[in-house]
Amino acid sequence: MKFRFLSALALLTVNTSFAQDSVMFRKISDEIMLHGTCYENLRVLCKNVGNRISGSPAAAKAVQWGEKCMKEAGADHVWLQAADVPYWYRGKESLMIKMGNGAYKKMTALSLGNTEGTGGKPLEAQVVLVHSYEEFNALPDDAVKGKIIFFDYRFRQDFVFTFQGYGDGVKYRWASPSIAAKRGAVGVIIRSMSTGADDFPHTGGMHYNDSFKKIPEMALGNYSADSLEHYLAKGTVTAKMQSDCHMNEEKRHSYNVIGEITGTKYPDSIITVGGHLDSWDVGEGANDDGAGCVQSIEVLRAIKAIGLKPKYTIRAVLFMNEENGLKGGEAYADSAKAKHEHHALAIETDAGGFSPRGIGLEMSEVQKEKVRVFKNLFLAYGVYDFSIEEGGADIGPIHKKLNTPLAGLIPDSQRYFDVHHTNNDVFENVNHRELKLGAAVLTQFIYLASEHELF
Amino acid sequence: MKFRFLSALALLTVNTSFAQDSVMFRKISDEIMLHGTCYENLRVLCKNVGNRISGSPAAAKAVQWGEKCMKEAGADHVWLQAADVPYWYRGKESLMIKMGNGAYKKMTALSLGNTEGTGGKPLEAQVVLVHSYEEFNALPDDAVKGKIIFFDYRFRQDFVFTFQGYGDGVKYRWASPSIAAKRGAVGVIIRSMSTGADDFPHTGGMHYNDSFKKIPEMALGNYSADSLEHYLAKGTVTAKMQSDCHMNEEKRHSYNVIGEITGTKYPDSIITVGGHLDSWDVGEGANDDGAGCVQSIEVLRAIKAIGLKPKYTIRAVLFMNEENGLKGGEAYADSAKAKHEHHALAIETDAGGFSPRGIGLEMSEVQKEKVRVFKNLFLAYGVYDFSIEEGGADIGPIHKKLNTPLAGLIPDSQRYFDVHHTNNDVFENVNHRELKLGAAVLTQFIYLASEHELF
Repeated sequence: MKFRFLSALALLTVNTSFAQDSVMFRKISDEIMLHGTCYENLRVLCKNVGNRISGSPAAAKAVQWGEKCMKEAGADHVWLQAADVPYWYRGKESLMIKMGNGAYKKMTALSLGNTEGTGGKPLEAQVVLVHSYEEFNALPDDAVKGKIIFFDYRFRQDFVFTFQGYGDGVKYRWASPSIAAKRGAVGVIIRSMSTGADDFPHTGGMHYNDSFKKIPEMALGNYSADSLEHYLAKGTVTAKMQSDCHMNEEKRHSYNVIGEITGTKYPDSIITVGGHLDSWDVGEGANDDGAGCVQSIEVLRAIKAIGLKPKYTIRAVLFMNEENGLKGGEAYADSAKAKHEHHALAIETDAGGFSPRGIGLEMSEVQKEKVRVFKNLFLAYGVYDFSIEEGGADIGPIHKKLNTPLAGLIPDSQRYFDVHHTNNDVFENVNHRELKLGAAVLTQFIYLASEHELF
Repeated sequence: MKFRFLSALALLTVNTSFAQDSVMFRKISDEIMLHGTCYENLRVLCKNVGNRISGSPAAAKAVQWGEKCMKEAGADHVWLQAADVPYWYRGKESLMIKMGNGAYKKMTALSLGNTEGTGGKPLEAQVVLVHSYEEFNALPDDAVKGKIIFFDYRFRQDFVFTFQGYGDGVKYRWASPSIAAKRGAVGVIIRSMSTGADDFPHTGGMHYNDSFKKIPEMALGNYSADSLEHYLAKGTVTAKMQSDCHMNEEKRHSYNVIGEITGTKYPDSIITVGGHLDSWDVGEGANDDGAGCVQSIEVLRAIKAIGLKPKYTIRAVLFMNEENGLKGGEAYADSAKAKHEHHALAIETDAGGFSPRGIGLEMSEVQKEKVRVFKNLFLAYGVYDFSIEEGGADIGPIHKKLNTPLAGLIPDSQRYFDVHHTNNDVFENVNHRELKLGAAVLTQFIYLASEHELF
């Protein structure tokens, strides 16, 4: 496109009763788009710390990074909140396959998070393909017993909002090993929960039913899953799985990182904004959820930079252990309950550092309506969707225990499940403007909630 | 983010009077998201043809590619429409700078499109920095005469809709050489029209005022422009520009590529959907505008694949020479006028292959209202903005000559000016889902226009 002047939503005149809010929205956006430090903070987290599974040395380093960033952002108080976390260890892993009596070929695969591996020994068995649990249930017993079951369920690309596709298919990742073990299978391979037109395998949480044997589970990227499908259409395929994966018996000490700005009118009423600091042990955890961490810190920095004096206390929280335990979120809620804190609102940003499109609202209808009064103010920032009922995983416990209303930043979802839980979730796949715009929208929303005492 | 079920706009019940349209919208989206070929077509264009400036051998190859794709899409008729185009040649180019009597250092730079170079000879002169035309106008004559002027105007990142930033600053690229030459400057360097947090220089069209000497113009990426700024703050800087750039005197034969599906009720009324086939001579022209070409072709493919029988004739047009002449758009309009064709509507997609957010409407208020009646149908596909008055450059001539109402696909604009006109505008920077979703929205809009006889 060459250049022509375009009149945009940005130029819409807003109802004059919101004129002052509109000015503040612009001030917040300008501050973050022009002077935001979240992108540089993310670069440091991704490149100097890297991926950071709960309990790992990198997670400890990330805690230090978070503490430093919170101080630099100008928080009035910064502290660490203890949370003991599980530590899952991947170690070495490999998946090989062969057709008939042919030679083994190495596949690019990732064990799913929390799996027990093969104890480092090779596990060889014939591969049996099913597309769904319906097909699996229809298999005769001898087609399951002693076999490695390949659950070849494709991420449905027809859902426009990709989280619907994830919700639809993730059970194959989460539950398949125990379902297969119940009938005597010895291992599970899945097609990754991936929208990618590529071959990155996606790790992610899985769960064992303790009643059955804990068999290993590995994921293939879309291209490799296509290959395996192709080989199986031609004849018998044998797989050899080998991995050191295991869940350590002892918990490890870790922390949520918290920074806050004290409220001027209601210092004892808290608005929380957070993302999670841990990631899976691949890639750089850039979109999941480095982006949410640096955006939450940016909220504090922007409030200080433009001299906003929020009525409520605003707290940025980098939660530990979202991916495989939620111990940080639980510790936060437990502490709040024990201290009889009043939590007015909690907001999570954990859906990638992409262009914001909406704000999810998990609260009463009356509360939703209070927010929606202001929705046209957000249009100039690309935010129009207030229909999704969603906060976020880390703030789930505070909702359950203190009945805190929740909100969640809803970015564009098209690219998230291309990179989610992969070696491709790196800094380079976060755009600086998209990331900053998300932080701006979070700050605008918090400004509204505080200024108009919405909760 | 782990996984939770999310209720989305996709689940909104639509006013029942639009129930049939809603079903067709879903059918179109499913067809393209699941079976679309536009991403693969783009891969071939980018990787097998590459960049394709008007008049180049690559542009001729792109015409063949387009013709083949149109046929594969199932168009009823496919033809080439002649358009003679200018041919601008870059050749070798270099920009070196030195501080004081130091050694020359090579900068990563690109000559702007249409510039006359230095005839291959070195052009050495002192560099003078200005941030704006105001500062330039305030310079004394001896600070301009014989100098290379560095117009160091930054792309304004505070505009949320980046096309506003482009509109704001592009004059420095377009007009500076003649403005500087008028006062005796010998060359121009600009900071690229770039939102990028990187060092890619951006080329793009410039224009000489024939009254003044045609002096060369080169662009620096943001990091290099920062360096030059830094050097100039410390002392005298000399630049050495050298380039073979020139506009060939003779025009070259080229073509628009056209494919159409004949209308069932109004075969003589035409709805055009198009992008431009030419690109600048860098990168792969992936977002600008390979994306628009493959989306336009996808519209035809999807219509055929789902068995839609449009009332109007639907024409996909790959326009030649949008970047530096608009000869394809003019040839299209001239032909339409000469043949007394009736053009009901023309739609352009030339703002990158990003997630769709709106449809620009450049038409009468009555016509806009006819479209906006249906706007809620688009919400589930992420399209909510019908406020922008914009069609596109290639369809400008048909609007002027035949008064055809125009529309334009408005994708998310955050990333466009990171890659626009750079070596970084490559296939890898187009996301398959975002590209397809844009094609789906175009097809839905064309379905509506045709089915409801809106124009």
